[in-house]
Amino acid sequence: MFKTTSTFGDFGRTGELTTRRGVVTTPTFMPDGTRGAVKSLTPQQVVDTGVQIVLANTYHLHLQPGEKAIKQLGGLHAFANRQGPMLTDSGGFQVFSLGKHTKISEEGVHFKDPKTGDKRFISPEISMQIQLDLGADMIVAFDHLVGLDHTVSDKEVKEAFDRTHRWLERCIAEFKRLTADMSDSERPLLFGVVQGGLDLDLRKQSLEIIQNSDVDGIAIGGLSVGETREEMTTVLQALAPLYRKDKPRFLLGVGTPEDLKIAVENGIDMLDCVLPTRNARHATVWSTNDAKIHLTNEQYSLDTSPIEPGCDCYACANGFSKAFLRHQFKVGEPLAGTLASIHNLRYMSRLCEQYCSK
Amino acid sequence: MFKTTSTFGDFGRTGELTTRRGVVTTPTFMPDGTRGAVKSLTPQQVVDTGVQIVLANTYHLHLQPGEKAIKQLGGLHAFANRQGPMLTDSGGFQVFSLGKHTKISEEGVHFKDPKTGDKRFISPEISMQIQLDLGADMIVAFDHLVGLDHTVSDKEVKEAFDRTHRWLERCIAEFKRLTADMSDSERPLLFGVVQGGLDLDLRKQSLEIIQNSDVDGIAIGGLSVGETREEMTTVLQALAPLYRKDKPRFLLGVGTPEDLKIAVENGIDMLDCVLPTRNARHATVWSTNDAKIHLTNEQYSLDTSPIEPGCDCYACANGFSKAFLRHQFKVGEPLAGTLASIHNLRYMSRLCEQYCSK
Repeated sequence: MFKTTSTFGDFGRTGELTTRRGVVTTPTFMPDGTRGAVKSLTPQQVVDTGVQIVLANTYHLHLQPGEKAIKQLGGLHAFANRQGPMLTDSGGFQVFSLGKHTKISEEGVHFKDPKTGDKRFISPEISMQIQLDLGADMIVAFDHLVGLDHTVSDKEVKEAFDRTHRWLERCIAEFKRLTADMSDSERPLLFGVVQGGLDLDLRKQSLEIIQNSDVDGIAIGGLSVGETREEMTTVLQALAPLYRKDKPRFLLGVGTPEDLKIAVENGIDMLDCVLPTRNARHATVWSTNDAKIHLTNEQYSLDTSPIEPGCDCYACANGFSKAFLRHQFKVGEPLAGTLASIHNLRYMSRLCEQYCSK
Repeated sequence: MFKTTSTFGDFGRTGELTTRRGVVTTPTFMPDGTRGAVKSLTPQQVVDTGVQIVLANTYHLHLQPGEKAIKQLGGLHAFANRQGPMLTDSGGFQVFSLGKHTKISEEGVHFKDPKTGDKRFISPEISMQIQLDLGADMIVAFDHLVGLDHTVSDKEVKEAFDRTHRWLERCIAEFKRLTADMSDSERPLLFGVVQGGLDLDLRKQSLEIIQNSDVDGIAIGGLSVGETREEMTTVLQALAPLYRKDKPRFLLGVGTPEDLKIAVENGIDMLDCVLPTRNARHATVWSTNDAKIHLTNEQYSLDTSPIEPGCDCYACANGFSKAFLRHQFKVGEPLAGTLASIHNLRYMSRLCEQYCSK
């Protein structure tokens, strides 16, 4: 299911991940199509940036329009008009960060829909059911996430760590039950989630547990949630020598060109984040050498150059100038966010492609 | 400059309009790229709908970023990254409808920028200067518009009528001065504007005056500003037998499929309106036989059919369902407005194309 095609540095690798909707070359950056669509972009524009996998958020789609509606509409791919591979997250991150009155028990998580106030409940089993109804090609086990800020005690980290592994077994059992009738080539891939906060021993133990479980891929959770880049790097470096070679490794929620490089050089194959498109909609783009550009700056008002000279994205290759983009952002035209998003996604995809061509 | 290629009914015609950026087949619907860009669409997406001419608003671009900035950036086409023909309006309509503290004198119109409060002044000469700085391929004479509601007296209509013709002479003189160094193939086309409210005698006189002036095209102004469809039809029918054959006829600010047909069957070659894209961004689209569909309606929540079965636009041809569009509108995703805009523009373009293939 995962084949290494080359290696670089101490731990980096390029590879091919086989999904039921085709082969993905890695490393690969996955934009967040939160509610089934990458914000401001048509599916064709997404594909044109070189993106190979689109992530959709289980939490958002569960609340609206609901996984049963999407299943009835033919599943996520038919719904969102995407032919290529899709991945859904477990819903855990949003339940913990967006749900109101969240109450965690061993059984699962009770919370209220922040929009309607309706009571909701997601358990490991329910997360599997939702994700299989949505119909993504890769799905993620439901984990217990705790923030990495200093209000979280070691005890809480350890509790979340242990619960994550107990929940993983329940996810696997439910996943097997739900996919019992599927052939190997029909079955989506299940990723287990490594937790353990910034405690390197817990992280290593967690990786060991996940790798020895019946999962298709390893997801690294609980990073990019408030820790420093150095702290994140330390965790990734601690895990890098310990990965099995035959499973893809997915770093959840990471996001900038700098972090992508650190991750990939420490053996990560897949990354997702809202940042490239969210930044873009707020006029912030990456240019040559990861320089961060704020397109609304006065200095660009007469600048005829594209965001990144030499870039092959639709916006740069067609010569949309910084001055044009600045004007469109200033007057609130949605096209500006579309063009900037196209550029940022192409930027992230190209960073990934550069490893493959080395 | 205008060649009739076929005729239909009593007054309808198809034709070819030669501009300095290529030949346009008519009838043709022109979307409003208000601030240089059709809202939510890339220039390529606009071209893909069959749109041949994009209109940009002199008033908006004059206020921000200013015609001098656009000229310095290489003109409207380089700025907005459009290769095909563009048309700018005179700024008159927005000055009268959006400007604050508007004061009209024989010299021109004083008003305040509604955003900054800055004092502004546009005269016939200044409108020509702005439009030539912007660099559109077709430009429109600065006219005095009065609303058609019942608070406008016959005297006011007549005053606006007379002033429009005096201003036209000033526009023509300034246009000639500014384009004196241009060859025939370099010079943009100037449209004079027919006014006269709902008074058919004034309308006919105005057309006579405009047609006998040194203009390249005839624009019909002051319609679609509050009158009924019957009133508009009466004016268009009164003018239909009187047009010269060698000049293109442009109906300003008209807009729905029904109105487009009435106009085209009464000899109109070009139409512009914000309606198709504005409606689309508010989830209202046209389907088979001009049926108006509100995509946010509950009834579409599980509807897997496209907006218009058989439509060849990107949204319909790729099978984006009403259910998907409804969901994306409900959760405020900008892609919904993009897809609906693509459909509505394709709908209007196809109505025009059907006359050509008859």
